[in-house]
Amino acid sequence: MNVVVQNIPRADPAIIKDLGAAGVATVHEAQARTGLLASYIRPIYRGASIAGSAVTILAPPGDNWMLHVAIEQLQPGDILVLGTTEPSDAGYFGDLLATSAKARGCRGLIIDAGVRDVRDLEAIGFPVWSKAICAQGTIKETLGSVNVPIICAGAAINPGDVIVADDDGVCVVAHGEAETVNKAAQARIANEEEKRARFEQGELGLDMYDMRDRLEKAGLIYV
Amino acid sequence: MNVVVQNIPRADPAIIKDLGAAGVATVHEAQARTGLLASYIRPIYRGASIAGSAVTILAPPGDNWMLHVAIEQLQPGDILVLGTTEPSDAGYFGDLLATSAKARGCRGLIIDAGVRDVRDLEAIGFPVWSKAICAQGTIKETLGSVNVPIICAGAAINPGDVIVADDDGVCVVAHGEAETVNKAAQARIANEEEKRARFEQGELGLDMYDMRDRLEKAGLIYV
Amino acid sequence: MNVVVQNIPRADPAIIKDLGAAGVATVHEAQARTGLLASYIRPIYRGASIAGSAVTILAPPGDNWMLHVAIEQLQPGDILVLGTTEPSDAGYFGDLLATSAKARGCRGLIIDAGVRDVRDLEAIGFPVWSKAICAQGTIKETLGSVNVPIICAGAAINPGDVIVADDDGVCVVAHGEAETVNKAAQARIANEEEKRARFEQGELGLDMYDMRDRLEKAGLIYV
Amino acid sequence: MNVVVQNIPRADPAIIKDLGAAGVATVHEAQARTGLLASYIRPIYRGASIAGSAVTILAPPGDNWMLHVAIEQLQPGDILVLGTTEPSDAGYFGDLLATSAKARGCRGLIIDAGVRDVRDLEAIGFPVWSKAICAQGTIKETLGSVNVPIICAGAAINPGDVIVADDDGVCVVAHGEAETVNKAAQARIANEEEKRARFEQGELGLDMYDMRDRLEKAGLIYV
Amino acid sequence: MNVVVQNIPRADPAIIKDLGAAGVATVHEAQARTGLLASYIRPIYRGASIAGSAVTILAPPGDNWMLHVAIEQLQPGDILVLGTTEPSDAGYFGDLLATSAKARGCRGLIIDAGVRDVRDLEAIGFPVWSKAICAQGTIKETLGSVNVPIICAGAAINPGDVIVADDDGVCVVAHGEAETVNKAAQARIANEEEKRARFEQGELGLDMYDMRDRLEKAGLIYV
Amino acid sequence: MNVVVQNIPRADPAIIKDLGAAGVATVHEAQARTGLLASYIRPIYRGASIAGSAVTILAPPGDNWMLHVAIEQLQPGDILVLGTTEPSDAGYFGDLLATSAKARGCRGLIIDAGVRDVRDLEAIGFPVWSKAICAQGTIKETLGSVNVPIICAGAAINPGDVIVADDDGVCVVAHGEAETVNKAAQARIANEEEKRARFEQGELGLDMYDMRDRLEKAGLIYV
Repeated sequence: MNVVVQNIPRADPAIIKDLGAAGVATVHEAQARTGLLASYIRPIYRGASIAGSAVTILAPPGDNWMLHVAIEQLQPGDILVLGTTEPSDAGYFGDLLATSAKARGCRGLIIDAGVRDVRDLEAIGFPVWSKAICAQGTIKETLGSVNVPIICAGAAINPGDVIVADDDGVCVVAHGEAETVNKAAQARIANEEEKRARFEQGELGLDMYDMRDRLEKAGLIYV
Repeated sequence: MNVVVQNIPRADPAIIKDLGAAGVATVHEAQARTGLLASYIRPIYRGASIAGSAVTILAPPGDNWMLHVAIEQLQPGDILVLGTTEPSDAGYFGDLLATSAKARGCRGLIIDAGVRDVRDLEAIGFPVWSKAICAQGTIKETLGSVNVPIICAGAAINPGDVIVADDDGVCVVAHGEAETVNKAAQARIANEEEKRARFEQGELGLDMYDMRDRLEKAGLIYV
Repeated sequence: MNVVVQNIPRADPAIIKDLGAAGVATVHEAQARTGLLASYIRPIYRGASIAGSAVTILAPPGDNWMLHVAIEQLQPGDILVLGTTEPSDAGYFGDLLATSAKARGCRGLIIDAGVRDVRDLEAIGFPVWSKAICAQGTIKETLGSVNVPIICAGAAINPGDVIVADDDGVCVVAHGEAETVNKAAQARIANEEEKRARFEQGELGLDMYDMRDRLEKAGLIYV
Repeated sequence: MNVVVQNIPRADPAIIKDLGAAGVATVHEAQARTGLLASYIRPIYRGASIAGSAVTILAPPGDNWMLHVAIEQLQPGDILVLGTTEPSDAGYFGDLLATSAKARGCRGLIIDAGVRDVRDLEAIGFPVWSKAICAQGTIKETLGSVNVPIICAGAAINPGDVIVADDDGVCVVAHGEAETVNKAAQARIANEEEKRARFEQGELGLDMYDMRDRLEKAGLIYV
Repeated sequence: MNVVVQNIPRADPAIIKDLGAAGVATVHEAQARTGLLASYIRPIYRGASIAGSAVTILAPPGDNWMLHVAIEQLQPGDILVLGTTEPSDAGYFGDLLATSAKARGCRGLIIDAGVRDVRDLEAIGFPVWSKAICAQGTIKETLGSVNVPIICAGAAINPGDVIVADDDGVCVVAHGEAETVNKAAQARIANEEEKRARFEQGELGLDMYDMRDRLEKAGLIYV
Repeated sequence: MNVVVQNIPRADPAIIKDLGAAGVATVHEAQARTGLLASYIRPIYRGASIAGSAVTILAPPGDNWMLHVAIEQLQPGDILVLGTTEPSDAGYFGDLLATSAKARGCRGLIIDAGVRDVRDLEAIGFPVWSKAICAQGTIKETLGSVNVPIICAGAAINPGDVIVADDDGVCVVAHGEAETVNKAAQARIANEEEKRARFEQGELGLDMYDMRDRLEKAGLIYV
């Protein structure tokens, strides 16, 4: 059955903003090292850093019809997240769709497939994290679904989950855990700043984390 | 038999220029989604965009002898296109060969193998689309051919075909179809500009392409 | 047995500097096309070019404990080189460890695994050549060794070997051969500069290297 | 939070048996071409064909502790299904664990990682579908979970789902849909038998499926 | 334009038989090491060895409509060879199509995509060389062509070319060169039998091929 | 410098025999989980299980000249182990070389490249573990070395090291550690037999290894 779910929950914008500022590595750590998409998903250009609510798309291989359907469901601050029913590297998305999505307030696209017009996308500032850059065109013949649970690059994503994406990759935070994870992330950031200052002064991790005893007990030998 | 074909047909420079301006994705669409090289061929640096006539090279694995032979066959505006008789990631091409090719008016290299000295190549503005960046040296022991039909990254390329390459990848247009494809490409560009303006205004693809009826007939359900 | 070798030989800083200026492709050629790491090791950002003495790390998969141990062994000008006992793409290294290593004078990291916080690493100017960019966290449970012979990306590396890394990849020069290789590299550079000037004037490699006779004898036919 | 869910629903054994007899390709078609695990999951030996209820395992990379925990949860007819929190090719499972699982009535293992002792596994008739055959040992240091929803080879699997595996790969049927899918599968089998007989007599698919008109309308030209 | 070419040339059956008996490695050597398909194309079961005339298929990704069209064009002794317009691992072919093709005298299938029902295919003795074993179903929506030049696994194949396939892979011989290549192959076989006998007696290749002088001149040192 | 080392140490035949009987997984465990070659090295046919002394070969890409040189250095019970200076999938080795090696008492070949004539190799009982099955021919133009330290599939191998290979892959034991490793392997085997019997009786690993307390302390929760 092919459905479009029209009303999805979205997390608090302030929390989304904080998670975005924390970044992928920190958010991933803050939720016990879960939620990371596979590392083959890479940004099409460097320097973009976004967070937003997932509008999910389940699409057939080489068929981008559902992207048009999904764009109507976007609210400002959302991120499109596309998984496929079968692997595909085709170029589902290019400058026209980006123009349309951007006009609806979309912050970016995470796609377990290909994308094209990458220079245009950088020029208009629409960031994409994809499996491939590939000009191969797609068709509009087979239905998929919008705002259903999907798997994207090995991670389970539900509509309304918070997506965080930067140069390190992409991480998903379940809608219901956004606040908790954000608290853990902010605590981690505060803690890291203090450590960074000590490392800059030349202090060693061996001392900062009291590792010497444990290393000796584990049997490490200095020669 | 190892041959060098010395006189090859070349397409009209004005058409080549237009195809280059249209770009890979548009040209690929304009010829019914054919001609694309495999997406593992990537530019060694971003932002280059070229079009030109293919001077083709069929080379043994790890042997770049034929590149020297091919450079003599270059005319201003040509693009070197190298396929191998067996997969190789070795660095067939570097700054010296680029200097030589550039001095003959060559616009770039498409190579189903490796390339090195990539920082120098960017500095002198000689773009390369390759399978790998790899410093591994090559030998000059075994003949290949120049200006014969080759397969490069899964695409059949004949000498004199038009090559279009940009950040989206590489596309080939058969010499005899360059004019027809160009007309289709230009029509597509005109059409896309009008659509882009409407997308910027927030119009949906669902409405612009009259998709709603067809989606309903296909069975899409909104919940 | 898990050991940390505390005193390792290091090559003459002047030679290291020269090898770094020569670059990966030239050094690789100067030592008879040996010493190259596999081409899947890529810089996390473009434009960095370093040379230094290898402080080697043999690490378990997904466990970065030994990086803390290795940082204590660093002297200014050293480069961390990490190989794993089993393949891993996890993110062993990020901004905190980079801050610590940089504070000890470390010039960069070569890692046959993943790295994260890549935007921060570029911001502080700590270059890394890695197999993957991946935010996946690591644990600190299992010992490895520091300054033992390792295999990194298919190349054998001993502590104190000279590492050269730039946009073309990474090359290792055995500690005892640094001087000899450097002489060959410098000779090669001098030779290439003269050739580059002649190529710029339009001279062909076919003539410069007297290839025409040999090509004819090998059976190349011009048509 | 690391949990072991002790009581999971299981589908009707008669339905499971029927689905197993239908095989992966038919079951996949019968549920609208969904549920297939990625094709990199391959049987360690040919000819095995199983179906059963999934006892799921979420395991850390290179750590097989949870397999011991999961084996206690097995009932006769179950299939172990292991997904990892991070990619790993290590050999999580070998002849001892197979002996233990088999003694509890387990029908086989689906694992998005590596397996070893494959000759022994074939000898005792314990089939495995895995990503790799790899002797690399694993540790028992970090908790995971048993009988929670997992992703295995790109497919979402819940505890108690029906797993069907044969030489074509692996397919999952949601627990609640087993009966419906089975009916569709049986209908499909009946239909295929009649077609097979007609194909054997030389009848063409073009005629059997009335394709000629549609091909002509689509524009196919015979020359 | 989508076409079906109905009458294609075929090579002499006696020559095809001889080439099949010679096998892939010998035929590849006999035509100067050309014609080999990429080594990722593997037999779905071991021990099959076939030769025949290529009936070629150019198919869209995930769409097997043209296979039905191609089967009508088969003559006894032919081999189906399928290339795609875009990479796909989907299962284009299974037991029903195999039954149909076999009823028309087809000897096997070479496919740069996926295949399913592999146990049935082995049972009925219909060999396939494919890129993947994958149960994923395909659609019948988009035209391709039959008996046009295609690229399959990196090799250019024309309708009527001779295909040789065995456990070593697949090799293509151009229709017009079949007789010449066969003579070279037979000469090679005669020559190898004599060598094999000498090797069995313990004679060394170093002596049989008079390599010692050449090795010494090249600088090989025995220590 | 290209050398052939003519006299290499070899381990005690009785120890080699025992290590072979222990098999790859057990030997790998017995030496603290080291020595495993990368899992992409697979047997060309199933069921072979060998152990012997390594005669090592360092070969250029696509050049099998050194195999002829190495065969002269073989003693009965040896195993050829070939690493390349650059990645290659070409078919370095086929039935003639196998006949020659077998006549000298060689037990098999481990090769980080391709092999061909695989059906013949199985017929004469000469097992090979390789990266690829590929009919692509090689040349005899460039020297390498014999019986020098090499890297093969990511593992460092010295001439005279003990190689163990079976369906699980390949493991290397340093010449000087063969006796120690063998003792550990035999102890492990004795221990496993007792465990296997208990597992067959239905005893759980949780009880056999006293894991329940440790799991509880680690925080595992049963629900």
